[in-house]
Amino acid sequence: MTYCVAINLDGGLIFASDSRTNAGVDNIASFCKMRMFEQVGNRALVTLTSGNLAISQGTINHLMQNGRDDSKLNLWNCRSMYDAANLVGDSLREVQRRDGPYLMQKNIDASSWFLIGGQIAGEEPRMFMVYAEGNCIEASRDTPFFQIGETKYGKPILDRVISPSTGLLEAAKCVMVSFDSTMRSNISVGPPIDLCVIPRDELRVSLHRRFQEGDPYMQMVHREWGEGLKRAFAQLPSPEWVDDGHPRSAPP
Amino acid sequence: MTYCVAINLDGGLIFASDSRTNAGVDNIASFCKMRMFEQVGNRALVTLTSGNLAISQGTINHLMQNGRDDSKLNLWNCRSMYDAANLVGDSLREVQRRDGPYLMQKNIDASSWFLIGGQIAGEEPRMFMVYAEGNCIEASRDTPFFQIGETKYGKPILDRVISPSTGLLEAAKCVMVSFDSTMRSNISVGPPIDLCVIPRDELRVSLHRRFQEGDPYMQMVHREWGEGLKRAFAQLPSPEWVDDGHPRSAPP
Repeated sequence: MTYCVAINLDGGLIFASDSRTNAGVDNIASFCKMRMFEQVGNRALVTLTSGNLAISQGTINHLMQNGRDDSKLNLWNCRSMYDAANLVGDSLREVQRRDGPYLMQKNIDASSWFLIGGQIAGEEPRMFMVYAEGNCIEASRDTPFFQIGETKYGKPILDRVISPSTGLLEAAKCVMVSFDSTMRSNISVGPPIDLCVIPRDELRVSLHRRFQEGDPYMQMVHREWGEGLKRAFAQLPSPEWVDDGHPRSAPP
Repeated sequence: MTYCVAINLDGGLIFASDSRTNAGVDNIASFCKMRMFEQVGNRALVTLTSGNLAISQGTINHLMQNGRDDSKLNLWNCRSMYDAANLVGDSLREVQRRDGPYLMQKNIDASSWFLIGGQIAGEEPRMFMVYAEGNCIEASRDTPFFQIGETKYGKPILDRVISPSTGLLEAAKCVMVSFDSTMRSNISVGPPIDLCVIPRDELRVSLHRRFQEGDPYMQMVHREWGEGLKRAFAQLPSPEWVDDGHPRSAPP
Protein backbone atom coordinates (compact mmCIF):
# COMPACT_ATOMS: atom_id res chain seq x y z
CA MET A 1 0.00 0.00 0.00
CA THR A 2 1.00 3.63 -0.12
CA TYR A 3 0.06 6.95 1.35
CA CYS A 4 0.74 10.26 -0.41
CA VAL A 5 -0.53 13.80 0.25
CA ALA A 6 -0.07 16.99 -1.74
CA ILE A 7 -1.34 20.40 -0.66
CA ASN A 8 -1.68 23.67 -2.55
CA LEU A 9 -1.37 26.56 -0.06
CA ASP A 10 -1.13 30.31 -0.49
CA GLY A 11 2.54 30.02 0.52
CA GLY A 12 3.39 27.20 -1.85
CA LEU A 13 3.09 23.46 -2.39
CA ILE A 14 3.78 20.63 0.05
CA PHE A 15 4.27 16.98 -0.92
CA ALA A 16 4.71 13.89 1.22
CA SER A 17 4.92 10.17 0.53
CA ASP A 18 5.70 6.97 2.36
CA SER A 19 8.13 4.40 0.93
CA ARG A 20 6.60 1.01 1.62
CA THR A 21 5.61 -1.26 -1.22
CA ASN A 22 4.17 -4.70 -0.90
CA ALA A 23 3.14 -7.53 -3.13
CA GLY A 24 1.29 -9.47 -0.44
CA VAL A 25 2.25 -9.14 3.20
CA ASP A 26 5.32 -11.33 2.73
CA ASN A 27 7.00 -9.20 0.11
CA ILE A 28 7.67 -5.77 1.59
CA ALA A 29 10.20 -3.39 0.12
CA SER A 30 11.11 0.26 0.23
CA PHE A 31 10.83 2.56 -2.81
CA CYS A 32 10.74 6.31 -2.97
CA LYS A 33 7.42 7.39 -4.45
CA MET A 34 8.38 11.06 -4.83
CA ARG A 35 10.13 12.45 -7.89
CA MET A 36 11.33 16.03 -8.23
CA PHE A 37 11.87 17.85 -11.54
CA GLU A 38 13.65 21.15 -11.13
CA GLN A 39 15.09 23.81 -13.43
CA VAL A 40 15.76 26.59 -10.96
CA GLY A 41 14.15 29.87 -11.95
CA ASN A 42 12.06 28.25 -14.68
CA ARG A 43 10.07 25.39 -13.16
CA ALA A 44 9.82 23.00 -10.23
CA LEU A 45 7.52 19.97 -10.36
CA VAL A 46 6.99 17.05 -8.00
CA THR A 47 5.17 13.79 -8.66
CA LEU A 48 3.84 11.31 -6.10
CA THR A 49 2.50 7.92 -7.06
CA SER A 50 0.49 4.99 -5.73
CA GLY A 51 -0.73 1.72 -7.17
CA ASN A 52 1.11 -0.85 -9.28
CA LEU A 53 4.81 -0.14 -8.77
CA ALA A 54 5.97 -1.35 -12.20
CA ILE A 55 3.34 0.80 -13.91
CA SER A 56 4.23 3.80 -11.72
CA GLN A 57 7.95 3.45 -12.37
CA GLY A 58 7.34 2.81 -16.06
CA THR A 59 5.35 6.02 -16.28
CA ILE A 60 8.12 8.03 -14.62
CA ASN A 61 10.77 6.44 -16.86
CA HIS A 62 8.66 7.19 -19.91
CA LEU A 63 8.29 10.83 -18.79
CA MET A 64 12.03 11.17 -18.18
CA GLN A 65 12.95 9.58 -21.48
CA ASN A 66 10.61 11.93 -23.35
CA GLY A 67 12.23 14.74 -21.39
CA ARG A 68 15.44 14.14 -23.35
CA ASP A 69 13.75 14.73 -26.69
CA ASP A 70 13.18 18.43 -27.12
CA SER A 71 11.25 17.92 -30.35
CA LYS A 72 8.42 16.49 -28.25
CA LEU A 73 6.25 18.17 -25.67
CA ASN A 74 7.74 17.14 -22.30
CA LEU A 75 8.00 18.17 -18.64
CA TRP A 76 10.88 20.54 -19.42
CA ASN A 77 9.30 22.47 -22.26
CA CYS A 78 5.56 22.33 -21.51
CA ARG A 79 4.04 25.75 -20.83
CA SER A 80 1.57 24.89 -18.08
CA MET A 81 0.99 22.52 -15.20
CA TYR A 82 -2.15 21.40 -17.00
CA ASP A 83 0.06 20.22 -19.87
CA ALA A 84 2.35 18.53 -17.34
CA ALA A 85 -0.59 16.65 -15.78
CA ASN A 86 -1.71 15.49 -19.22
CA LEU A 87 1.83 14.36 -20.02
CA VAL A 88 1.70 12.17 -16.92
CA GLY A 89 -1.66 10.79 -18.08
CA ASP A 90 -0.30 10.14 -21.59
CA SER A 91 2.76 8.29 -20.26
CA LEU A 92 0.60 6.29 -17.86
CA ARG A 93 -1.71 5.25 -20.71
CA GLU A 94 1.28 4.33 -22.88
CA VAL A 95 2.73 2.04 -20.20
CA GLN A 96 -0.67 0.52 -19.49
CA ARG A 97 -1.13 -0.12 -23.22
CA ARG A 98 2.18 -1.99 -23.24
CA ASP A 99 1.91 -3.98 -20.00
CA GLY A 100 -1.79 -3.92 -19.09
CA PRO A 101 -2.95 -6.91 -21.16
CA TYR A 102 -0.21 -9.14 -19.69
CA LEU A 103 -1.16 -8.16 -16.15
CA MET A 104 -4.84 -8.67 -16.90
CA GLN A 105 -4.13 -12.27 -17.90
CA LYS A 106 -3.04 -12.88 -14.30
CA ASN A 107 -5.76 -10.73 -12.76
CA ILE A 108 -3.15 -8.20 -11.63
CA ASP A 109 -4.37 -4.64 -11.31
CA ALA A 110 -2.48 -2.28 -13.64
CA SER A 111 -3.82 0.86 -11.94
CA SER A 112 -1.56 3.70 -10.82
CA TRP A 113 -2.48 7.14 -9.56
CA PHE A 114 -0.35 10.27 -9.61
CA LEU A 115 -0.30 13.59 -7.88
CA ILE A 116 1.62 16.25 -9.77
CA GLY A 117 2.11 19.76 -8.55
CA GLY A 118 4.49 22.59 -9.19
CA GLN A 119 5.00 25.96 -10.70
CA ILE A 120 6.13 26.90 -14.19
CA ALA A 121 7.35 30.47 -14.83
CA GLY A 122 4.39 32.60 -15.87
CA GLU A 123 1.84 30.51 -13.96
CA GLU A 124 0.57 30.20 -10.41
CA PRO A 125 1.52 27.07 -8.41
CA ARG A 126 -0.95 24.33 -9.40
CA MET A 127 -1.72 20.80 -8.29
CA PHE A 128 -3.39 17.90 -10.13
CA MET A 129 -4.51 14.37 -9.40
CA VAL A 130 -4.11 12.02 -12.37
CA TYR A 131 -6.48 9.07 -12.16
CA ALA A 132 -5.58 5.51 -13.15
CA GLU A 133 -7.43 6.16 -16.42
CA GLY A 134 -5.09 9.04 -17.25
CA ASN A 135 -7.60 11.88 -16.85
CA CYS A 136 -7.07 14.51 -14.16
CA ILE A 137 -8.62 17.01 -11.74
CA GLU A 138 -7.10 20.15 -10.25
CA ALA A 139 -7.00 21.20 -6.59
CA SER A 140 -8.84 24.42 -5.78
CA ARG A 141 -9.31 26.78 -2.84
CA ASP A 142 -12.29 24.67 -1.75
CA THR A 143 -10.25 21.46 -1.88
CA PRO A 144 -6.62 22.42 -1.42
CA PHE A 145 -5.26 18.91 -0.85
CA PHE A 146 -5.24 15.55 -2.59
CA GLN A 147 -4.44 12.13 -1.18
CA ILE A 148 -3.76 8.82 -2.94
CA GLY A 149 -3.30 5.30 -1.54
CA GLU A 150 -4.56 4.53 1.96
CA THR A 151 -6.32 7.87 2.42
CA LYS A 152 -8.99 7.45 5.08
CA TYR A 153 -7.11 7.19 8.37
CA GLY A 154 -5.15 10.37 7.68
CA LYS A 155 -7.96 12.47 6.22
CA PRO A 156 -9.79 13.74 9.36
CA ILE A 157 -6.83 15.82 10.61
CA LEU A 158 -6.28 17.33 7.16
CA ASP A 159 -10.00 18.18 6.97
CA ARG A 160 -9.81 19.95 10.31
CA VAL A 161 -6.55 21.87 9.87
CA ILE A 162 -5.81 22.58 6.21
CA SER A 163 -7.13 25.65 4.42
CA PRO A 164 -5.41 27.68 1.67
CA SER A 165 -4.11 30.16 4.27
CA THR A 166 -2.46 27.50 6.47
CA GLY A 167 1.26 28.20 6.79
CA LEU A 168 3.82 25.82 5.28
CA LEU A 169 5.22 24.78 8.68
CA GLU A 170 1.77 24.23 10.15
CA ALA A 171 0.78 22.20 7.11
CA ALA A 172 3.98 20.12 7.32
CA LYS A 173 3.15 19.33 10.96
CA CYS A 174 -0.39 18.37 9.94
CA VAL A 175 0.97 16.08 7.23
CA MET A 176 3.18 14.34 9.79
CA VAL A 177 0.19 13.76 12.09
CA SER A 178 -1.77 12.46 9.10
CA PHE A 179 1.04 9.99 8.33
CA ASP A 180 1.25 8.97 11.99
CA SER A 181 -2.48 8.11 12.08
CA THR A 182 -2.18 6.18 8.82
CA MET A 183 0.89 4.19 9.87
CA ARG A 184 -0.73 3.37 13.22
CA SER A 185 -3.75 1.76 11.53
CA ASN A 186 -2.21 0.28 8.37
CA ILE A 187 1.11 -1.55 8.57
CA SER A 188 1.45 -1.49 4.79
CA VAL A 189 2.23 2.25 5.00
CA GLY A 190 5.70 2.92 6.42
CA PRO A 191 8.84 5.04 6.60
CA PRO A 192 10.99 6.59 5.28
CA ILE A 193 8.60 9.50 4.79
CA ASP A 194 9.66 12.02 2.14
CA LEU A 195 8.50 15.60 2.61
CA CYS A 196 9.26 18.47 0.25
CA VAL A 197 8.20 22.04 -0.41
CA ILE A 198 7.97 24.28 -3.46
CA PRO A 199 7.49 27.78 -2.03
CA ARG A 200 5.37 30.14 -4.14
CA ASP A 201 7.27 31.99 -6.86
CA GLU A 202 10.68 30.54 -5.96
CA LEU A 203 10.57 28.12 -8.93
CA ARG A 204 12.66 25.53 -7.10
CA VAL A 205 12.21 22.65 -4.66
CA SER A 206 13.45 24.60 -1.68
CA LEU A 207 13.40 21.81 0.85
CA HIS A 208 13.39 18.06 1.07
CA ARG A 209 13.48 16.09 4.27
CA ARG A 210 13.46 12.32 4.64
CA PHE A 211 12.14 10.97 7.94
CA GLN A 212 13.73 7.56 8.52
CA GLU A 213 12.33 4.89 10.83
CA GLY A 214 12.96 6.06 14.40
CA ASP A 215 13.34 9.74 13.41
CA PRO A 216 13.12 11.75 16.66
CA TYR A 217 10.55 14.23 15.29
CA MET A 218 8.35 11.43 13.99
CA GLN A 219 8.59 9.60 17.33
CA MET A 220 7.73 12.79 19.19
CA VAL A 221 4.66 13.37 16.98
CA HIS A 222 3.57 9.77 17.60
CA ARG A 223 3.92 10.07 21.39
CA GLU A 224 2.62 13.62 21.90
CA TRP A 225 -0.28 13.29 19.50
CA GLY A 226 -1.39 10.09 21.23
CA GLU A 227 -1.20 11.84 24.61
CA GLY A 228 -3.01 14.90 23.27
CA LEU A 229 -5.86 12.76 21.92
CA LYS A 230 -6.17 10.97 25.25
CA ARG A 231 -6.37 14.30 27.09
CA ALA A 232 -8.98 15.61 24.65
CA PHE A 233 -10.97 12.39 25.10
CA ALA A 234 -10.73 12.48 28.90
CA GLN A 235 -12.11 16.03 28.91
CA LEU A 236 -15.30 15.01 27.07
CA PRO A 237 -18.26 14.28 29.36
CA SER A 238 -19.76 10.80 29.11
CA PRO A 239 -23.31 10.34 27.84
CA GLU A 240 -26.10 9.92 30.33
CA TRP A 241 -27.97 6.67 30.15
CA VAL A 242 -31.62 7.11 29.39
CA ASP A 243 -33.51 3.97 28.51
CA ASP A 244 -36.08 5.06 25.97
CA GLY A 245 -37.97 1.77 25.94
CA HIS A 246 -37.16 1.01 22.29
CA PRO A 247 -39.13 -2.12 21.31
CA ARG A 248 -37.34 -5.45 21.69
CA SER A 249 -38.34 -8.67 19.97
CA ALA A 250 -39.59 -11.19 22.50
CA PRO A 251 -40.07 -14.93 22.14
CA PRO A 252 -43.42 -15.96 20.63
CA MET B 1 -23.32 3.30 3.51
CA THR B 2 -23.47 2.29 7.14
CA TYR B 3 -21.39 2.35 10.26
CA CYS B 4 -21.82 -0.14 13.11
CA VAL B 5 -19.63 -0.95 16.11
CA ALA B 6 -19.96 -3.68 18.73
CA ILE B 7 -17.65 -4.06 21.73
CA ASN B 8 -17.20 -6.92 24.19
CA LEU B 9 -16.03 -5.47 27.53
CA ASP B 10 -15.53 -6.99 30.96
CA GLY B 11 -18.65 -5.08 32.06
CA GLY B 12 -20.84 -6.18 29.17
CA LEU B 13 -21.58 -5.55 25.52
CA ILE B 14 -22.10 -2.25 23.69
CA PHE B 15 -23.69 -1.88 20.28
CA ALA B 16 -24.11 1.17 18.06
CA SER B 17 -25.37 1.75 14.53
CA ASP B 18 -26.24 4.64 12.26
CA SER B 19 -29.50 4.71 10.31
CA ARG B 20 -28.65 6.04 6.88
CA THR B 21 -29.17 3.91 3.81
CA ASN B 22 -28.54 4.92 0.26
CA ALA B 23 -28.95 3.50 -3.19
CA GLY B 24 -26.81 6.10 -4.90
CA VAL B 25 -26.45 9.59 -3.44
CA ASP B 26 -29.91 10.59 -4.65
CA ASN B 27 -31.81 7.92 -2.76
CA ILE B 28 -31.17 8.40 0.94
CA ALA B 29 -33.44 6.91 3.58
CA SER B 30 -33.41 6.09 7.25
CA PHE B 31 -33.61 2.50 8.56
CA CYS B 32 -32.74 1.15 11.97
CA LYS B 33 -29.90 -1.35 11.58
CA MET B 34 -30.07 -2.61 15.16
CA ARG B 35 -32.35 -5.45 16.26
CA MET B 36 -32.74 -6.60 19.87
CA PHE B 37 -33.88 -10.09 20.92
CA GLU B 38 -34.65 -10.32 24.61
CA GLN B 39 -36.08 -12.93 26.98
CA VAL B 40 -35.28 -11.38 30.32
CA GLY B 41 -33.34 -13.72 32.62
CA ASN B 42 -32.69 -16.20 29.83
CA ARG B 43 -31.01 -14.38 26.95
CA ALA B 44 -30.40 -11.00 25.34
CA LEU B 45 -29.02 -10.72 21.81
CA VAL B 46 -28.44 -7.75 19.52
CA THR B 47 -27.72 -7.76 15.79
CA LEU B 48 -26.25 -4.95 13.68
CA THR B 49 -26.08 -5.10 9.93
CA SER B 50 -24.49 -3.44 6.92
CA GLY B 51 -24.58 -4.02 3.19
CA ASN B 52 -27.51 -4.71 0.89
CA LEU B 53 -30.60 -3.58 2.81
CA ALA B 54 -33.03 -6.06 1.25
CA ILE B 55 -30.67 -8.95 2.01
CA SER B 56 -30.12 -7.68 5.58
CA GLN B 57 -33.83 -7.26 6.25
CA GLY B 58 -34.59 -10.60 4.59
CA THR B 59 -32.09 -12.28 6.90
CA ILE B 60 -33.66 -10.73 10.00
CA ASN B 61 -37.16 -11.65 8.82
CA HIS B 62 -36.02 -15.20 8.14
CA LEU B 63 -34.51 -15.40 11.65
CA MET B 64 -37.68 -14.05 13.27
CA GLN B 65 -39.93 -16.36 11.29
CA ASN B 66 -37.83 -19.38 12.30
CA GLY B 67 -38.07 -18.08 15.87
CA ARG B 68 -41.77 -18.94 15.84
CA ASP B 69 -41.13 -22.61 15.06
CA ASP B 70 -39.91 -24.31 18.20
CA SER B 71 -39.26 -27.56 16.36
CA LYS B 72 -36.30 -25.84 14.69
CA LEU B 73 -33.12 -24.51 16.17
CA ASN B 74 -33.68 -20.75 16.47
CA LEU B 75 -32.50 -17.65 18.34
CA TRP B 76 -34.86 -18.41 21.25
CA ASN B 77 -33.86 -22.01 21.87
CA CYS B 78 -30.21 -22.16 20.77
CA ARG B 79 -27.82 -22.98 23.60
CA SER B 80 -24.87 -20.79 22.69
CA MET B 81 -23.96 -17.54 21.00
CA TYR B 82 -21.90 -19.58 18.56
CA ASP B 83 -25.12 -21.33 17.51
CA ALA B 84 -26.81 -17.92 17.24
CA ALA B 85 -24.04 -16.60 14.95
CA ASN B 86 -24.36 -19.66 12.74
CA LEU B 87 -28.14 -19.19 12.60
CA VAL B 88 -27.53 -15.68 11.27
CA GLY B 89 -25.12 -17.12 8.69
CA ASP B 90 -27.64 -19.80 7.69
CA SER B 91 -30.45 -17.28 7.25
CA LEU B 92 -28.15 -14.96 5.29
CA ARG B 93 -27.17 -17.81 2.95
CA GLU B 94 -30.82 -18.79 2.53
CA VAL B 95 -31.83 -15.27 1.50
CA GLN B 96 -28.81 -14.95 -0.80
CA ARG B 97 -29.73 -18.29 -2.39
CA ARG B 98 -33.20 -16.93 -3.09
CA ASP B 99 -32.37 -13.38 -4.26
CA GLY B 100 -28.67 -13.45 -5.14
CA PRO B 101 -28.93 -14.71 -8.75
CA TYR B 102 -31.49 -12.01 -9.60
CA LEU B 103 -29.27 -9.29 -8.18
CA MET B 104 -26.24 -10.69 -9.95
CA GLN B 105 -28.04 -10.32 -13.30
CA LYS B 106 -28.03 -6.56 -12.67
CA ASN B 107 -24.54 -6.47 -11.16
CA ILE B 108 -26.02 -5.59 -7.77
CA ASP B 109 -23.98 -6.70 -4.78
CA ALA B 110 -25.94 -9.13 -2.56
CA SER B 111 -23.44 -8.89 0.32
CA SER B 112 -24.51 -8.21 3.89
CA TRP B 113 -22.49 -8.35 7.06
CA PHE B 114 -23.75 -8.87 10.61
CA LEU B 115 -22.47 -8.30 14.09
CA ILE B 116 -24.24 -10.41 16.68
CA GLY B 117 -23.51 -10.28 20.37
CA GLY B 118 -25.26 -11.18 23.55
CA GLN B 119 -25.43 -13.52 26.47
CA ILE B 120 -27.37 -16.76 26.87
CA ALA B 121 -27.89 -18.17 30.38
CA GLY B 122 -24.99 -20.52 31.17
CA GLU B 123 -22.50 -18.70 28.91
CA GLU B 124 -20.28 -15.65 29.06
CA PRO B 125 -21.24 -12.61 26.95
CA ARG B 126 -19.92 -13.23 23.42
CA MET B 127 -19.65 -11.29 20.19
CA PHE B 128 -19.38 -12.46 16.57
CA MET B 129 -18.92 -10.95 13.14
CA VAL B 130 -20.77 -12.85 10.40
CA TYR B 131 -19.19 -12.30 7.00
CA ALA B 132 -21.15 -11.89 3.77
CA GLU B 133 -20.33 -15.55 3.03
CA GLY B 134 -22.10 -16.65 6.22
CA ASN B 135 -19.01 -17.77 8.15
CA CYS B 136 -18.04 -15.98 11.36
CA ILE B 137 -15.27 -14.92 13.74
CA GLU B 138 -15.48 -14.18 17.47
CA ALA B 139 -14.16 -11.12 19.32
CA SER B 140 -11.47 -11.84 21.89
CA ARG B 141 -9.55 -10.00 24.59
CA ASP B 142 -6.95 -9.06 21.98
CA THR B 143 -9.59 -7.66 19.63
CA PRO B 144 -12.58 -6.68 21.77
CA PHE B 145 -14.45 -4.72 19.09
CA PHE B 146 -15.81 -5.25 15.60
CA GLN B 147 -16.87 -2.68 13.02
CA ILE B 148 -18.82 -3.09 9.78
CA GLY B 149 -19.60 -0.60 7.00
CA GLU B 150 -17.50 2.56 6.72
CA THR B 151 -14.97 1.49 9.36
CA LYS B 152 -11.77 3.44 8.76
CA TYR B 153 -12.50 7.00 9.87
CA GLY B 154 -13.80 5.83 13.25
CA LYS B 155 -11.20 3.16 13.97
CA PRO B 156 -8.23 5.19 15.29
CA ILE B 157 -10.06 6.41 18.42
CA LEU B 158 -11.33 2.89 19.19
CA ASP B 159 -7.77 1.56 18.76
CA ARG B 160 -6.48 4.12 21.22
CA VAL B 161 -9.16 3.88 23.91
CA ILE B 162 -10.84 0.47 23.95
CA SER B 163 -9.51 -2.46 25.94
CA PRO B 164 -11.51 -5.20 27.70
CA SER B 165 -11.31 -3.30 31.00
CA THR B 166 -12.72 -0.03 29.58
CA GLY B 167 -15.89 0.92 31.47
CA LEU B 168 -19.27 0.91 29.72
CA LEU B 169 -19.70 4.69 30.00
CA GLU B 170 -16.18 5.40 28.76
CA ALA B 171 -16.71 3.00 25.86
CA ALA B 172 -20.06 4.62 25.01
CA LYS B 173 -18.32 8.00 24.87
CA CYS B 174 -15.61 6.53 22.65
CA VAL B 175 -18.25 5.09 20.33
CA MET B 176 -19.87 8.52 20.01
CA VAL B 177 -16.51 10.09 19.08
CA SER B 178 -15.97 7.29 16.58
CA PHE B 179 -19.36 8.04 14.99
CA ASP B 180 -18.62 11.77 14.98
CA SER B 181 -15.36 11.22 13.04
CA THR B 182 -17.13 8.92 10.59
CA MET B 183 -20.06 11.25 9.97
CA ARG B 184 -17.71 14.20 9.50
CA SER B 185 -15.84 12.43 6.68
CA ASN B 186 -18.60 10.37 5.05
CA ILE B 187 -22.01 11.91 4.43
CA SER B 188 -23.50 8.49 3.72
CA VAL B 189 -23.30 7.70 7.45
CA GLY B 190 -25.88 9.64 9.48
CA PRO B 191 -28.24 9.88 12.44
CA PRO B 192 -30.25 8.71 14.23
CA ILE B 193 -27.54 6.76 16.06
CA ASP B 194 -28.80 3.79 18.09
CA LEU B 195 -26.77 2.82 21.13
CA CYS B 196 -27.56 -0.08 23.46
CA VAL B 197 -25.97 -2.06 26.25
CA ILE B 198 -26.23 -5.63 27.53
CA PRO B 199 -24.53 -5.54 30.94
CA ARG B 200 -22.71 -8.71 31.94
CA ASP B 201 -24.91 -11.35 33.61
CA GLU B 202 -28.09 -9.24 33.54
CA LEU B 203 -29.50 -11.24 30.60
CA ARG B 204 -31.42 -8.24 29.28
CA VAL B 205 -30.89 -5.20 27.07
CA SER B 206 -30.63 -2.77 29.95
CA LEU B 207 -30.44 0.43 27.95
CA HIS B 208 -31.20 1.81 24.55
CA ARG B 209 -30.70 5.37 23.52
CA ARG B 210 -31.42 6.92 20.14
CA PHE B 211 -29.46 10.04 19.26
CA GLN B 212 -31.53 12.03 16.77
CA GLU B 213 -30.12 14.65 14.40
CA GLY B 214 -29.27 17.69 16.51
CA ASP B 215 -29.10 15.73 19.78
CA PRO B 216 -27.39 18.02 22.34
CA TYR B 217 -24.92 15.35 23.51
CA MET B 218 -23.95 14.52 19.93
CA GLN B 219 -23.52 18.22 19.11
CA MET B 220 -21.41 18.72 22.23
CA VAL B 221 -19.15 15.76 21.28
CA HIS B 222 -18.79 17.23 17.78
CA ARG B 223 -17.83 20.67 19.08
CA GLU B 224 -15.66 19.71 22.04
CA TRP B 225 -13.83 16.92 20.27
CA GLY B 226 -13.01 19.25 17.38
CA GLU B 227 -11.72 21.86 19.85
CA GLY B 228 -9.76 19.23 21.78
CA LEU B 229 -8.06 18.01 18.61
CA LYS B 230 -7.16 21.55 17.64
CA ARG B 231 -5.63 22.14 21.07
CA ALA B 232 -3.66 18.88 20.87
CA PHE B 233 -2.47 19.84 17.39
CA ALA B 234 -1.47 23.36 18.45
CA GLN B 235 0.65 21.93 21.27
CA LEU B 236 2.75 19.84 18.89
CA PRO B 237 6.02 21.47 17.80
CA SER B 238 6.48 22.01 14.05
CA PRO B 239 9.24 20.18 12.20
CA GLU B 240 12.48 21.97 11.54
CA TRP B 241 13.37 22.42 7.90
CA VAL B 242 16.60 20.74 6.95
CA ASP B 243 17.28 20.50 3.26
CA ASP B 244 19.10 17.22 2.84
CA GLY B 245 20.08 17.81 -0.78
CA HIS B 246 18.00 14.88 -2.09
CA PRO B 247 18.75 14.52 -5.82
CA ARG B 248 16.39 16.31 -8.20
CA SER B 249 15.99 15.51 -11.87
CA ALA B 250 17.35 18.36 -13.99
CA PRO B 251 16.77 19.10 -17.67
CA PRO B 252 19.15 17.30 -20.05
